[in-house]
Amino acid sequence: MNPEPVTDWAQLPLSRTTVDRAAELRDDVELVERLLTASSTRVVLVRGASLAVRDAHGSSVPGALVLDLVPGAEVVAVLATTQSELTAPHAPGWLFLGTDDDGAYLALVLPAEADEDVDISGVVPARAEDILGRGRRFENLRDAGHLLDARDAGLATTAVGVAAWHVRALRCEHCGEATRPARNGWSRVCTSDGREVFPRTDPAVIMAVVDDAERLLLGHAAHWPEGRFSTLAGFVEAGESVEAAVRREVREETTVVIGDVVYRSSQPWPFPRSLMLGFRAHAVTTDVVVDGVEVTDARWFTRDGLAADLAAGRVLLPMRSSIARGLIEEWYGGPLADRTG
Amino acid sequence: MNPEPVTDWAQLPLSRTTVDRAAELRDDVELVERLLTASSTRVVLVRGASLAVRDAHGSSVPGALVLDLVPGAEVVAVLATTQSELTAPHAPGWLFLGTDDDGAYLALVLPAEADEDVDISGVVPARAEDILGRGRRFENLRDAGHLLDARDAGLATTAVGVAAWHVRALRCEHCGEATRPARNGWSRVCTSDGREVFPRTDPAVIMAVVDDAERLLLGHAAHWPEGRFSTLAGFVEAGESVEAAVRREVREETTVVIGDVVYRSSQPWPFPRSLMLGFRAHAVTTDVVVDGVEVTDARWFTRDGLAADLAAGRVLLPMRSSIARGLIEEWYGGPLADRTG
Repeated sequence: MNPEPVTDWAQLPLSRTTVDRAAELRDDVELVERLLTASSTRVVLVRGASLAVRDAHGSSVPGALVLDLVPGAEVVAVLATTQSELTAPHAPGWLFLGTDDDGAYLALVLPAEADEDVDISGVVPARAEDILGRGRRFENLRDAGHLLDARDAGLATTAVGVAAWHVRALRCEHCGEATRPARNGWSRVCTSDGREVFPRTDPAVIMAVVDDAERLLLGHAAHWPEGRFSTLAGFVEAGESVEAAVRREVREETTVVIGDVVYRSSQPWPFPRSLMLGFRAHAVTTDVVVDGVEVTDARWFTRDGLAADLAAGRVLLPMRSSIARGLIEEWYGGPLADRTG
Repeated sequence: MNPEPVTDWAQLPLSRTTVDRAAELRDDVELVERLLTASSTRVVLVRGASLAVRDAHGSSVPGALVLDLVPGAEVVAVLATTQSELTAPHAPGWLFLGTDDDGAYLALVLPAEADEDVDISGVVPARAEDILGRGRRFENLRDAGHLLDARDAGLATTAVGVAAWHVRALRCEHCGEATRPARNGWSRVCTSDGREVFPRTDPAVIMAVVDDAERLLLGHAAHWPEGRFSTLAGFVEAGESVEAAVRREVREETTVVIGDVVYRSSQPWPFPRSLMLGFRAHAVTTDVVVDGVEVTDARWFTRDGLAADLAAGRVLLPMRSSIARGLIEEWYGGPLADRTG
């Protein structure tokens, strides 16, 4: 079933990490202010699921990128110029990402859209976040994750994941009052009842479903571009094991019955907040009936058939940063043409 | 490292399931009312993390239990007597659990504490929930999960998991207004902006850390009873793979460095809402330093040493329903004395 394990499960694009999260420092309320004065501190700029990046000149990887990290001293200079607070009220603010031998890493979350607030004389106030982001190139983590090295991929994935949660957890689930960021970005606290909440991550399963003839089952979701096919996936429900979720999702989406389920690896997928748990699942039936709502097409591919469909442009595969891509290429036994959708 | 895999990873107590969740029926707003009129419908009574149970007479398993399921007709009769609505305003209400060849299963979530509201003449009103729960025996899923059969364990775990979420998601995270249950208990909808939210499940890792001498690392948490030891565990953070979480948690709690990490199996742990992902982790260092706050003791056990400590009452192990117990017994190579804490 798996002659050539070409996918390196220990090196999935968004699972890579080198920076120590140094969680023991998160409770220091003066951490950001102190770190910004250190010459070794660098700041990741995040805007939605996008990050400030530059070309990685001299890399042997085509299209390789590096994070466009802002030195702490530059942030301090901009803050002095604009007389801004360290955290503007409209932004989720600062996030402490961790440390390595080279220094500390912070993320600064920029407003998702350029803010056109003007003061009473019609002048757009100069804000630190705007100045720091100006003129930089931003790329979506989904598209760029596999083009970053391990350090930058880990920093970027964490920054995007935590930032995405902040903009969705503005109110206390218990009393409805406003929450404010705490622990250097790693929690939010209710301004009324003091309850603390931590970033939410939704576990999901994603699976290469393979039958006795070694064919791979791929599906097409209703909202995808025409011709895009990928592995089946879905959220783990409350009170359900991961293995039960694999069987339920495949049956719900295709009516195919699953026998053995073998874990492969995991990858954070912070769009906005999933944790993808990847499996190989053995199909014990092969008739496919799609629900026609979420999944509008699903079919069995042979290796030769998928390669031909790709070459002819009839099929688009998931992006290289995804675990789906890893599952498909493991089944195929090698890299596939880079036609993604 | 693992001479006798005595733990059946496909049959973890709270991962077992036989009932079809039949998610396609969740959108039917008259589902509960209709199902209650069917003679084959049975109702699981949930109160916090506890369930109505009875002794399973005639079972060969010592202490075996069955859910004390209430026939739909009995619920209808009580509703008629009390002239109650199907869902009282103070309860999270009804949850549709699914179907099997014998009929449909609902859960009714009872108030966590006996409610002593009285009417103007000092009489406690007869409410359907109170009458249905009266005189029944309730057991916590944590203690009773492994004593139920697969059908009842799956029903109970799902009911407890979804019920626990409802009481924590009362307000909209976006606007702060009240939310109300929808989709027969499977979501909540904001009464102001209409946003829909689904039950939250927090992924966590739990790992048998084993060194080159086949010793097992167990820890003692600050808030546990004296002598209780279990496998290390912790939540997966935003932007982190599961494998990275295993390495980070072990290092944070004990300073031990982990090499290879091998997935074992998963189990829902709805206290209130975790998904436990179980691993065997190979330690490449053996010096142990605990943080003294969360974890106040951690030590290496040999197989003989653990058996002796258990026999002497110096060590208590995690409950049989836990995945920790499965990881420890797999390492040990067989069942251990049933002294839990």
